[in-house]
Amino acid sequence: CKAIQQDPEKMYEYTAKRNMAAVISDGSAVLGLGNIGHKASYPVMEGKAMLFKRFGGVDAVPIIVKTQDTEEFVNAVKNIADSFAIINLEDISAPRCFEIEEMLRKECEIPIFHDDQHGTAIVVLAALIGALKLTGKGKDARIVINGAGAGGIAVSKLLHKYGFSNMVLCDSKGIIHKERSGLNKYKREILEFSNPQNMKGTIHDAIKGADVFIGLSRAGVISKDDILSMNSDAIVLAMANPNPEIMPDEAKASGARIVGTGRSDFPNQINNALAFPGLFRGLIDSRAREITDEIKIRAAEAIAEYHENCLSEESILPKLFDEKAHMFVAEKVREFVLSAN
Amino acid sequence: CKAIQQDPEKMYEYTAKRNMAAVISDGSAVLGLGNIGHKASYPVMEGKAMLFKRFGGVDAVPIIVKTQDTEEFVNAVKNIADSFAIINLEDISAPRCFEIEEMLRKECEIPIFHDDQHGTAIVVLAALIGALKLTGKGKDARIVINGAGAGGIAVSKLLHKYGFSNMVLCDSKGIIHKERSGLNKYKREILEFSNPQNMKGTIHDAIKGADVFIGLSRAGVISKDDILSMNSDAIVLAMANPNPEIMPDEAKASGARIVGTGRSDFPNQINNALAFPGLFRGLIDSRAREITDEIKIRAAEAIAEYHENCLSEESILPKLFDEKAHMFVAEKVREFVLSAN
Repeated sequence: CKAIQQDPEKMYEYTAKRNMAAVISDGSAVLGLGNIGHKASYPVMEGKAMLFKRFGGVDAVPIIVKTQDTEEFVNAVKNIADSFAIINLEDISAPRCFEIEEMLRKECEIPIFHDDQHGTAIVVLAALIGALKLTGKGKDARIVINGAGAGGIAVSKLLHKYGFSNMVLCDSKGIIHKERSGLNKYKREILEFSNPQNMKGTIHDAIKGADVFIGLSRAGVISKDDILSMNSDAIVLAMANPNPEIMPDEAKASGARIVGTGRSDFPNQINNALAFPGLFRGLIDSRAREITDEIKIRAAEAIAEYHENCLSEESILPKLFDEKAHMFVAEKVREFVLSAN
Repeated sequence: CKAIQQDPEKMYEYTAKRNMAAVISDGSAVLGLGNIGHKASYPVMEGKAMLFKRFGGVDAVPIIVKTQDTEEFVNAVKNIADSFAIINLEDISAPRCFEIEEMLRKECEIPIFHDDQHGTAIVVLAALIGALKLTGKGKDARIVINGAGAGGIAVSKLLHKYGFSNMVLCDSKGIIHKERSGLNKYKREILEFSNPQNMKGTIHDAIKGADVFIGLSRAGVISKDDILSMNSDAIVLAMANPNPEIMPDEAKASGARIVGTGRSDFPNQINNALAFPGLFRGLIDSRAREITDEIKIRAAEAIAEYHENCLSEESILPKLFDEKAHMFVAEKVREFVLSAN
């Protein structure tokens, strides 16, 4: 106590805070279930805590927050944040999640991660690195992202940061373009780097001629005809849960070369759990103060790099239960943070 | 998730909440150290969490809260409370701790315990039951409590509830009596059942002729002369930490028959850790919704009952590391709560 009173950093040396993560939700946007409330979201947080421990050796605690008022939520979390080495926000509805993350990053001394945004972005980027290599496509590939919630917005931002120059985002009302009224601040922001031709229309218009479809939306929103209208060697990452935007057999039959979903019963499962345990292990071990885009990119590259020699159309990512994959990500993140300091 | 959404009580069946306790502090009144801040208080919370697990099988998580503003503290805790089966408040300064506990008991669906108050009260009552039996004194024993912080106030209330009729409390300004100005609400409240003769003066006046001295104050505030002025077969529980109100050898040499302290290196250690692990185990196992005075009394009686056949002047309480003692308390609390429902 006295040592920490003199030097608060000693908490990392003398206490369990060192390896403690909080997995925090208000239950406002639980994957596949919607706004089911904080109590009903607890099993998801608990499961996530198990994955953190099993694959990252991180001691994670499920914390459910009663309020869905943005400011009250932020006040509660910022006041308990010093108990942990790192915080994982989970299943919080967009666009509140963006504001909450921004506010907490400002208020807290520890890294704040929102898995629905950044975990998704990392693992999608990792999948894309592999898929592009297999198809010989590059950073000028035309990418259509369907869904402009937490996942879609974050994926577009990280892909932009990575260097992809030709992206279009769609939400439930169609293509997000400059003349659309009623766009929230976050959808307006992504127009600064997406939709360079200011395309208008529906998802069906957007997907014509595209190289990559990234679905973070809902079941069945695209059809065989949409896939047929894509460029050759099309990459389809249809990640709606539990049922994808198009079923893999339909996408394949319509000419898609690489198809991934969020599900474990199809090839190419694209699951955040491939990213967050190793990422957190690396962040904790390197005492990172925040999670920059560069760190997220390094994590995505590490996932892809680990799988390099095993890459195939039916296997663009490592298996979720490959313990070494998580440790590889941890090590690459740790090295990157330490070398950047 | 769906089952809990339909019936929130299912959290207790399906999730880890069932056995999760939070040990929460703002670091404003750490035993022996004072207001050292929330970060520096973490090791105490962590140690407490270990004791909960080791002796009660309770999964406890240290939570430190950044703010020392009463309302903001309550807001933070009430918003995360549903994550846990029970909350243990710890090392929060008086009189804020009383208000915080009251507010949280109203706001939360789970039991709220403030160990500095109620853990202390339980273990002091247990010690007193044994000591009175050895000395042949009864509920009309004259009791002087020195210290009117969290511990002193709570001890006086529980002893009153148990039936002791002749108590006087002192704070740093002396005896608390009806004509004293500037008394906070909590000190005024205890006048409703204490100091029946409306005594005035110092602790030295109060202790004259007393049967029992209970110290929850600071080192060296009473002397050999004070002990000499007490009734025969005096009971002295001098629990200031790390140094007691009077050292045991001095108290003994001055005629005290039974002497206890907070320390493990003297006989008769009076330590809350004898109460809280078993109490929490029993509360969790019986799904108690709140912690009534009757439950606290039952816990104290259970501690005393367990030690009945081993009672001696040098051993008025079970040993802290006696695992069976904790399980005995748990079982008696569980039975009591279930029989009351």
